[in-house]
Amino acid sequence: MIVEVVAVGTELLLGQIVNGNGAYLGRKLAEAGLDANHQTVVGDNLERLAEVIRVALGRADAVVLTGGIGPTPDDLTREAICAATGREMVFDPDYAEVLRARWAAFGRPMPENNLRQAEHPQGSALLPNPKGTAPGIALQHDGSWIYAVPGVPAEMELMVETQVLPALRRAAGIDQSIVSRVIRTWGRSESQVAELLGDLYEASVNPSLAFLASNAEIKVRITAKGDTEAEALRLVAPLEQQVRERLGAAVFGTDDETVEGVVLGLLAERGWWLATAESATAGLVAARLGAVAGASRVFRGGVIAYDRVVKITQLGVPAALLDEHGAVSEAAALAMAAGAAAALEAEVAVAVTGSAGPEPLEREVGTMVVAVQTPEGARARTMRLPGDRERVRAYTSTAALHLVRLAVDGSWWSE
Amino acid sequence: MIVEVVAVGTELLLGQIVNGNGAYLGRKLAEAGLDANHQTVVGDNLERLAEVIRVALGRADAVVLTGGIGPTPDDLTREAICAATGREMVFDPDYAEVLRARWAAFGRPMPENNLRQAEHPQGSALLPNPKGTAPGIALQHDGSWIYAVPGVPAEMELMVETQVLPALRRAAGIDQSIVSRVIRTWGRSESQVAELLGDLYEASVNPSLAFLASNAEIKVRITAKGDTEAEALRLVAPLEQQVRERLGAAVFGTDDETVEGVVLGLLAERGWWLATAESATAGLVAARLGAVAGASRVFRGGVIAYDRVVKITQLGVPAALLDEHGAVSEAAALAMAAGAAAALEAEVAVAVTGSAGPEPLEREVGTMVVAVQTPEGARARTMRLPGDRERVRAYTSTAALHLVRLAVDGSWWSE
Repeated sequence: MIVEVVAVGTELLLGQIVNGNGAYLGRKLAEAGLDANHQTVVGDNLERLAEVIRVALGRADAVVLTGGIGPTPDDLTREAICAATGREMVFDPDYAEVLRARWAAFGRPMPENNLRQAEHPQGSALLPNPKGTAPGIALQHDGSWIYAVPGVPAEMELMVETQVLPALRRAAGIDQSIVSRVIRTWGRSESQVAELLGDLYEASVNPSLAFLASNAEIKVRITAKGDTEAEALRLVAPLEQQVRERLGAAVFGTDDETVEGVVLGLLAERGWWLATAESATAGLVAARLGAVAGASRVFRGGVIAYDRVVKITQLGVPAALLDEHGAVSEAAALAMAAGAAAALEAEVAVAVTGSAGPEPLEREVGTMVVAVQTPEGARARTMRLPGDRERVRAYTSTAALHLVRLAVDGSWWSE
Repeated sequence: MIVEVVAVGTELLLGQIVNGNGAYLGRKLAEAGLDANHQTVVGDNLERLAEVIRVALGRADAVVLTGGIGPTPDDLTREAICAATGREMVFDPDYAEVLRARWAAFGRPMPENNLRQAEHPQGSALLPNPKGTAPGIALQHDGSWIYAVPGVPAEMELMVETQVLPALRRAAGIDQSIVSRVIRTWGRSESQVAELLGDLYEASVNPSLAFLASNAEIKVRITAKGDTEAEALRLVAPLEQQVRERLGAAVFGTDDETVEGVVLGLLAERGWWLATAESATAGLVAARLGAVAGASRVFRGGVIAYDRVVKITQLGVPAALLDEHGAVSEAAALAMAAGAAAALEAEVAVAVTGSAGPEPLEREVGTMVVAVQTPEGARARTMRLPGDRERVRAYTSTAALHLVRLAVDGSWWSE
């Protein structure tokens, strides 16, 4: 079944917001085994929106519209569906009561324009919107399906997952279960991963393999179809095992796991506190750790040693060491890590120093050094990274978190 | 002139990447005075891409395609333009030489498939791509214009700004200059800003006013058209002055200025060093400062005082003070700021503490405290913020930077 996504809103055409809903729906349709050939963005204009729906019905089996179903006069998706399908608008008095009751619960009178949300094309059904007031619309028309959902991402996503996708899969006769598992890796390039898994990739149909790069991390997605979820999972398991064996220590997580979450979990297992000492990344590593709920159970804190004086006074790095080796050096990074562990009373410390650009600092732009100290040892790595200041800093913060992971689980020592 | 943007790439349809190019082009077309009614996304499929170009030519005066002009077999934009316009493909031997010379300069032999980039539809011109190897394409066909540019954002943006938009404006007969100025504010809500400027908004045609909210900052954009850039700027000036007068201290910058850049500039003017002391934001404030090139001239560094022990040992906050007032208190924030200023030898320090959630820490989730100390005084503010942990932390880091700004320029003291 071919599904066309139509995003409605002049603010999208003007680029005031990015069409993240389109990417979300593209991903979800693909995961659900549904095909997509086109996506269209159109403004809040009745005639053009109706024509876009007509065109989409001509080349797809189903159309999913996002946006344009609110209460204001520029919300025209309902009218456009009527125009495109030659249907009358009908009024649902029951839903009008639902709306009135909801406003009464807020203790406020309902503006009359909200009643537009109880209107829908004849023959269509209203889809409940658990997170908002505008209901969605589901219409079967001449053998095609039309769905309209809100443009607000949280409302749209819930309705798509629980109502639209299951219905489209039923309509497409897809009664198979689709299961996806993402194996997350770091430390190998996308082409290295593709090479290591080349024969598996070529041979895999069900389950199938896909590679996705984001930042310095490469994801390997295994997707399987089966008559039941249990069967699909059974198909995933042996391929997952092969992928994990081939990629070894590069694998750090599954599905939505993040390296910061994995690091905090490993530290909790060992009962170790973590401290950070950052120069070039200036708090990025710490901020990523602090973004995880519950980080305070193992993350002690850190020092942003941007200026030389802070490296000396807060981290106890000897001035002579900085004079001899420079601040962008493995010696300095190791001393920063040791100093952070001591000063912040932490068993583990990670230190970052480097030349992030645009002007070189001691060493060539993109030269970044990470050091990690644990009760079992200490080690540093120097990297030469491409890209601008933002990219270099982001990549380095990811590398620093992975090196903490490899140091805490011990695998860095045996490399 | 109506322009339709067509984004080419199966990875867009599958949602593996978000169509940020579409938003960029939407914004740039609007700013250039060009109209847009539709945007389309289509995969790497010759027949469908050609049909999408035909449909776009039928409803727009110009089509701008992004993506699909690289060297690999799934780059089909060139072929699709030929198919849609009934033109032959021709080969540009001069550009082939340019490609060969470029690869020779890398010291590598050129893969033969790169020669596809020297092909283009008969009658079209190749557009130089200063940041990459794939040239763009410009074609006038039956009174319409077709442009193809790369999908790589940096390459696309440069070519659009310097080549495509000027040509489209000439083709549209727009010889008027359009000038935009963005006044950036913080401290008032979008509805407050809209109310303060309500009459100006209603009365403004040329120049026109628009409001844009992003994070906690509200932008007011003034756009004017004139026969010359100087005339357009003359139209902007009096409205800009009125907007600035109405919004007063809420205004902190213009166009692309950021609060971190403004803060660093103010500190440089005063000859003051800055230190940070962060608990709940765990380095976010410091990381934003460190993202600005040259920050090291006034940013000394900071302490991430996540754990109580760090507040005491690194920042010298008395344990008794924490016991009496709690860590999420104005007293603690002021002591953290004083401690950071002393420990890091900085004239100015900003401290953040709070309960970011999801579990409450001492006080209700969303209770955030910022304190700033300068040689002229010290002050704290307690905020109650809505949203989840991520939003609360991001909003607080913005608020902290703005409070540093107001403290350093002195206006916080007279509030």
